[in-house]
Amino acid sequence: MLIYGDKRSGNCYKLQLLLALLGKACEWIDVDILKGECRTDTFLAKSPNGKIPILELDDGRVLSESNAIMHYLASGSAFIPTSPFTFATLLQWQFFEQYSHEPYIAVARYINLYLGLPEDRKAEYEAKQAGGYRALEVMDKQLSQTPFLLGNQISLADISLFAYTHVAHEGGFDLAAYPAIRNWITLIKDQKGFIPMEA
Amino acid sequence: MLIYGDKRSGNCYKLQLLLALLGKACEWIDVDILKGECRTDTFLAKSPNGKIPILELDDGRVLSESNAIMHYLASGSAFIPTSPFTFATLLQWQFFEQYSHEPYIAVARYINLYLGLPEDRKAEYEAKQAGGYRALEVMDKQLSQTPFLLGNQISLADISLFAYTHVAHEGGFDLAAYPAIRNWITLIKDQKGFIPMEA
Repeated sequence: MLIYGDKRSGNCYKLQLLLALLGKACEWIDVDILKGECRTDTFLAKSPNGKIPILELDDGRVLSESNAIMHYLASGSAFIPTSPFTFATLLQWQFFEQYSHEPYIAVARYINLYLGLPEDRKAEYEAKQAGGYRALEVMDKQLSQTPFLLGNQISLADISLFAYTHVAHEGGFDLAAYPAIRNWITLIKDQKGFIPMEA
Repeated sequence: MLIYGDKRSGNCYKLQLLLALLGKACEWIDVDILKGECRTDTFLAKSPNGKIPILELDDGRVLSESNAIMHYLASGSAFIPTSPFTFATLLQWQFFEQYSHEPYIAVARYINLYLGLPEDRKAEYEAKQAGGYRALEVMDKQLSQTPFLLGNQISLADISLFAYTHVAHEGGFDLAAYPAIRNWITLIKDQKGFIPMEA
């Protein structure tokens, strides 16, 4: 089993962190997104959508989408609740992450940190701020009520949202007004097996 | 159990279509997104992210995110494969739908059909075309190999992607070059219990 990814990407870090918390290992192949390495013919033959991370099984089958790969890697573990409603709530947070959080917070971070906030992307960067703060509000509201997103126990929802939330400042977001999020970040960093994101 | 939604929205139609194919019914409360009815205090108290559809259980618990709600409604049915890899592939297509398909095809359709393609949104509308066609390419590639997205059997992946793909022309997308997608649309329309989207 192989993971193709760029370790500076939060979407890829989700898989690294999950594997570390599960006490599992997986071979890793570096793909540099800034060099367009996930748009080469070889990569597109594996995964036509041309995005990282992807997981390649020993028999050649390939999975894409970080949040989907997490379900495969953590299948049968305590990170995936089994009751239908709680399981659907886990998915709710992961879809929220991809639609209402990542396109603001991760993209602002990408423009700022990877691209160095160039003049021609500044308007886009600034336009990302309102949506990012809206997503943080939604998370903070839940985390004011329960220590983890689904309640008392850590799940894939927390790992998915931790990836870009804990580096939100790199996209210009200030977490000072979100004490419940800051407390949750500390709780996750305290988990047995935790590994930090590569700088 | 109640669904709050706007029947012109593909995200809401996903739930209507799924329930019809399952032979189930659910009470429906109309929410007009153009009138901002999912941003009222009452709605935000139910679902802080302020998006439709949402599902409200009889005990007051609420689920948001169309693709997550589908998993709850179809729990235990043949629309959800049980093998871990195939299940993860189902999720892969649903995350693809929310990240690489809906933000282009559904948003272009919204600007064109709901807003009447106003001058100040024209550049955004045109910018959506390339991404939408890229998503259609990815789908067509899979559907050239298998009749449904996961193989020989219809699943939630097909319902999720059918919602906005079958009305992609309303966002300016021409499906003429995608025979496998057109064939798949016909296959879905032929399913027992199929209901069309409201105009």
